Amino acid sequence: MKKLVLLAALTLMSCQAPVKEENPAPTFGIVIHGGAGTILRKNMTPEMEAAYRATLETAVRTGYEILKAGGTSQEAVEKTIHVMEDSPLFNAGKGAVLTADETIELDASFMNGATLDAGAIAGVQTIKHPITAAIAVMEDSPHVMLSGKGAEAFAQAQGLELVAPKYFFTERRINSLKRVKEKEQQTAWSAEEWQDFKNQKFGTVGCVALDQAGNLAAGTSTGGMTNKKWNRIGDAPIIGAGTYANNASCAISATGWGEYFIRSVVAHDIAALMEYKGLSIQEAARVVIHEKVAKLGGDGGIVGIDRQGNIAMEMNTAGMYRAHIDAEGNLTVKIYKDE
Amino acid sequence: MKKLVLLAALTLMSCQAPVKEENPAPTFGIVIHGGAGTILRKNMTPEMEAAYRATLETAVRTGYEILKAGGTSQEAVEKTIHVMEDSPLFNAGKGAVLTADETIELDASFMNGATLDAGAIAGVQTIKHPITAAIAVMEDSPHVMLSGKGAEAFAQAQGLELVAPKYFFTERRINSLKRVKEKEQQTAWSAEEWQDFKNQKFGTVGCVALDQAGNLAAGTSTGGMTNKKWNRIGDAPIIGAGTYANNASCAISATGWGEYFIRSVVAHDIAALMEYKGLSIQEAARVVIHEKVAKLGGDGGIVGIDRQGNIAMEMNTAGMYRAHIDAEGNLTVKIYKDE
Repeated sequence: MKKLVLLAALTLMSCQAPVKEENPAPTFGIVIHGGAGTILRKNMTPEMEAAYRATLETAVRTGYEILKAGGTSQEAVEKTIHVMEDSPLFNAGKGAVLTADETIELDASFMNGATLDAGAIAGVQTIKHPITAAIAVMEDSPHVMLSGKGAEAFAQAQGLELVAPKYFFTERRINSLKRVKEKEQQTAWSAEEWQDFKNQKFGTVGCVALDQAGNLAAGTSTGGMTNKKWNRIGDAPIIGAGTYANNASCAISATGWGEYFIRSVVAHDIAALMEYKGLSIQEAARVVIHEKVAKLGGDGGIVGIDRQGNIAMEMNTAGMYRAHIDAEGNLTVKIYKDE
Repeated sequence: MKKLVLLAALTLMSCQAPVKEENPAPTFGIVIHGGAGTILRKNMTPEMEAAYRATLETAVRTGYEILKAGGTSQEAVEKTIHVMEDSPLFNAGKGAVLTADETIELDASFMNGATLDAGAIAGVQTIKHPITAAIAVMEDSPHVMLSGKGAEAFAQAQGLELVAPKYFFTERRINSLKRVKEKEQQTAWSAEEWQDFKNQKFGTVGCVALDQAGNLAAGTSTGGMTNKKWNRIGDAPIIGAGTYANNASCAISATGWGEYFIRSVVAHDIAALMEYKGLSIQEAARVVIHEKVAKLGGDGGIVGIDRQGNIAMEMNTAGMYRAHIDAEGNLTVKIYKDE
C-alpha cells in the first residue's frame, strides 16, 4: 500500500505521458481571465456588466469547443485569446491602454507545458493578434523573446496580420490616459484617487487549458499599464512571471501590477510550490497571491489549471473578469471577488 | 534534538533577519562568472588565458574589498560587474557581441535579495554600464524592466554615462559575426562547426554577493548572442531566468544559451529547490543545470551564493570563466571545467 501511494505520488509529480489508461474518460478544461483590479458593482452599469459576461462566455466557449473536439491546449489558448484581443473591453489587442507617449505597446507570451517551448513579444505596435506572434516566435524563430521593431519585422516576415496602430485605439482608453496624466500633476491624492490610479494598471487577458491528451498550455496578452514610460516591459511577456506551463505541475496566466509579478516570479513560483512542496494548485495560488505578492504591496490575480483539471482563479483585488468550463461542460463566469 | 534540528531547518529556510547573533564573525563572499562555453585549452594562448585570469581576479577583488569594508552586496555586485563591462574580453559593455544588423544591443538586470527589488534593461545601445542602468530602473523608476530607446531616454534623464555605439565594438567581435554569418549560409555543418556556432552564444558576465549584514544580491550583464535578430531578448535581463536573489534562499546569475535558460526559469528554479525542497545550493544548481537545462538541449552555467556563504559554480559546458573569494580572503580563479 505504501509502495502504491509512493508510486501514485511519483506518477503525479513526474509523469509526462497522457494519463489515459488510468482515466478512461479523459478530463480537460479551460480557464480565462480578462484582468483583475478594483472592479466594483457601484461603478458598473448593467449593460457593461452584461457585455463583459457575454464576451467572457464567447471566449471560453471557443477554447472549450476545440478541447472537446480533441484539439490541443495550444490551439484552445490561442483562439480563446483572439476573442479577447478582438474585443475593445479588454486591455489586449483592440482596446489596449495607451503609453505616456500616446502610443500602443503590446506584450504577449505563450508556453507549451508538454515541451516547455515558449515564445514572447514585447512592445509591438502593429500586430493584430500578439498571442499568435508569441506562438510564431516559439515555432518559427530560434529565439524565445523578441521586442519592438524587430518583433514586428519578424511577424511581417511570417505573414501575420498587421494593422495600422489606430486600429487599437478606443475612446475609453484615450480618456483613461488623460485622467492618469491629470492625476500625475496632483501632489496629494485621496485614497479613492490612489485606488483609481492603481486600477489603470489592469486588464490583461490570459488563458490556460488542459487538453484530452493531458497537455497543458498557458498564454497571456496585454497592452500593459496606462501611461507606461520608457518602453516599459511588464510581466505578461515574461516566462515564469506572467505565463508558465509545465506538465509536471500546472499552467498559469497572471494579471496585475506587473512589476510585483516579475519580482515574485509568480507563475513559476506557483508551479514550484506544487512540484517541490506538494501543494494543490489552489493552495499554491493562495500562498503566492495573498502572502507573497500582497506582502510586497502588489495587486492582481491568476488563473491556473493542473493535469487533473483542478483549477485556481485567485485574486487579491475586488474583482477579476474570469470564466471556466470543465470537461462536463459546466460554465462559470464571474467578475466580483465575492461571487 | 529533533526539535532543535527542525528549528535550525526552519531558521535556514525562512529567516529574513541578519544572523549576526548566531554567528559573531559575520560571513560574506562573492562569486563571479564571465561566460560559459566550449572553452578548451587547445584554443587558448598562454597570453589570452593570463589576461582572462587577471581580469577575473581584478573584478572579484573589487567586490571583495567592498564587502570586507562592510559595504552592501548591491554595491559589490555593481562595481565588480563594471570591471568586466569595461574589459573587451567579456561579452558585456565594451567587447559585446554584434547583432545580425551589426549593432550592439545590451541587456542587464539586478536583484536585491533583502527587498526583492529588481531592475532590468534590454536592447540598449549607448549605456556604458548596463548594470548601473538596471539598478537605476530599480531605484528611480516605477518600473522593473525598460527596453530600447525608452531605456536610453531614462538613463540619460538619470545622468548615467552614455557613449557612442562605436565604443563597444571590438575587432574580435566583428570577426565573430562574419564567421557566424558565413556559417549560416552553409547547409551541412560538421560537429566542430556546430560546437563553434553554439559557442557564439556565450560570454555574459555576472556576480552574486553576500554582505556582512546577511543580504544577498545578484547582477547579470551581456551583449547577448552573436548574430541575434529581431531585437531578441535573452535570459540576462529576465528576473527569474538570468538573475534572481532572495534572502530566503540564494543569489544566482546565469550564463548560457539564453532561450533554454528562460524556458527553464533557471535562477528562480534553483532558489525554489532550496526553499521548498531543502536542497543545498550545489545540489539545486546541479539538478537545474545538468538535469533540467541539459535535458532540453541547453548549454551554460550559473554562479550562486547562499546566506551561509556556500557557493555554486556549476556548468554543463567545457568551461566557464569564474572566480570566488570567501570571507577569509581565499581566492579561486578558474576557466576550465576540470580545474
